[in-house]
Amino acid sequence: MTYCVAMMLDRGLVFMSDTRTNAGVDDVSRVKKMHMFEMPGERSMVLLSSGNLATTQAAIGLLEERSKAPDDRDPSIFRTQSMFQTAKLVGETLNEVVANMRIRDDQPTAHAFSATLILGGQIAGSDPRLFLIYPEGNFIEAKSDNPFFQIGEIKYGRPILSRAYNAGMDFAEAAKLMLISFDSTLRSNLSVGLPIDMAVYRKDSFEIGPFRRFEEHDADFRAISLGWSDALKHAFARLPDLSIDEDA
Amino acid sequence: MTYCVAMMLDRGLVFMSDTRTNAGVDDVSRVKKMHMFEMPGERSMVLLSSGNLATTQAAIGLLEERSKAPDDRDPSIFRTQSMFQTAKLVGETLNEVVANMRIRDDQPTAHAFSATLILGGQIAGSDPRLFLIYPEGNFIEAKSDNPFFQIGEIKYGRPILSRAYNAGMDFAEAAKLMLISFDSTLRSNLSVGLPIDMAVYRKDSFEIGPFRRFEEHDADFRAISLGWSDALKHAFARLPDLSIDEDA
Repeated sequence: MTYCVAMMLDRGLVFMSDTRTNAGVDDVSRVKKMHMFEMPGERSMVLLSSGNLATTQAAIGLLEERSKAPDDRDPSIFRTQSMFQTAKLVGETLNEVVANMRIRDDQPTAHAFSATLILGGQIAGSDPRLFLIYPEGNFIEAKSDNPFFQIGEIKYGRPILSRAYNAGMDFAEAAKLMLISFDSTLRSNLSVGLPIDMAVYRKDSFEIGPFRRFEEHDADFRAISLGWSDALKHAFARLPDLSIDEDA
Repeated sequence: MTYCVAMMLDRGLVFMSDTRTNAGVDDVSRVKKMHMFEMPGERSMVLLSSGNLATTQAAIGLLEERSKAPDDRDPSIFRTQSMFQTAKLVGETLNEVVANMRIRDDQPTAHAFSATLILGGQIAGSDPRLFLIYPEGNFIEAKSDNPFFQIGEIKYGRPILSRAYNAGMDFAEAAKLMLISFDSTLRSNLSVGLPIDMAVYRKDSFEIGPFRRFEEHDADFRAISLGWSDALKHAFARLPDLSIDEDA
């Protein structure tokens, strides 16, 4: 499986993705699920991918190839006029791959070859924007009421995001929050795995970074993981006890 | 959907279940998912149910009916020799219903009519035992390495259970922990809903209770729900910040 999160903050965007891919528990590999498209000073875009790996690699491969030799039929991701148009292009490219795969399948099922993407970034002249793109090519945009997107194994790590997110966070706080969300997911689902990739995009910088990769023995990640366990246990102990009318 | 949890503690068993049932978001009702079978002083058993409501009601209806007029072919849940035999009987009854429903379906799919149960209790002469029973009628038992079971919408509320459970908890602590797990689930999935039913079974008491129903405005539940949100925010704020090499 996969776990990716992207967050819209007042000061920019933060992206985080795991790196585990598997075709059954006996066939596990490592793959980068974070992809960048940059024209320094003009546009900075990050794609996070989940779902069928052949599909996501084909879609990203097509986007890259077409950006090198664009024509009218196959526009380049470096020439779109807005992030909205970029989301449309990425969605159409994704759906092109998914639809092609399904045609070739003898017994197509809804989920085979499916993939979901998160696209975030900024094109000069507009604010940063963040989109969740479905396998059908349609997409939704993050707004103040839904300021972050998750794809893949989203449920274990969602409660803490819902509770602790606020748009005014700095990047270090946002990264801490996302790592806690990843830690909860990693502990519960073996098919989400370290290392974790992180990318920060500061609004109006038109340059993606800093980046960071959290490996298994990363001291910061371990401190957050252990610290969070302890903090939860203490918070739990300090909550008022429930009266359940026990006579024991 | 549904959310139910049952926990094996040194001092007994605790059961908790939500009460929402829905056939689409426009068809929502309330239903009790906790069922008791008791012979005071001799056996005390609790069943929690998730899945197709017609299936779980049929299975529990059959168990009740057959306990009133048992014969050799249809043994009574009040005459089983052990909790293991009870789990077997409950599993066979559940599978009988599921299999019957599937035969009548024109286009059977794996999940249609499916249901999953948790069975916990004690029969005089043995310790309390706890089982998770699958629609196929097979089952697994809680042991010290897997001391609690969840059915239904299990993921949102799992991380806190994994982290804070310990077998030596008293019932009030266990109830608090389970309510936190329910709170995380309720906030994330509309098809899990209040009120929440709770039942405690104290080892060797052979009498189920105390019971409690947490309604929407239950002061204890609100205190835990709000207290937990605050505690999480404080715990989050106190965790060491991450260094992400920001030059801002």
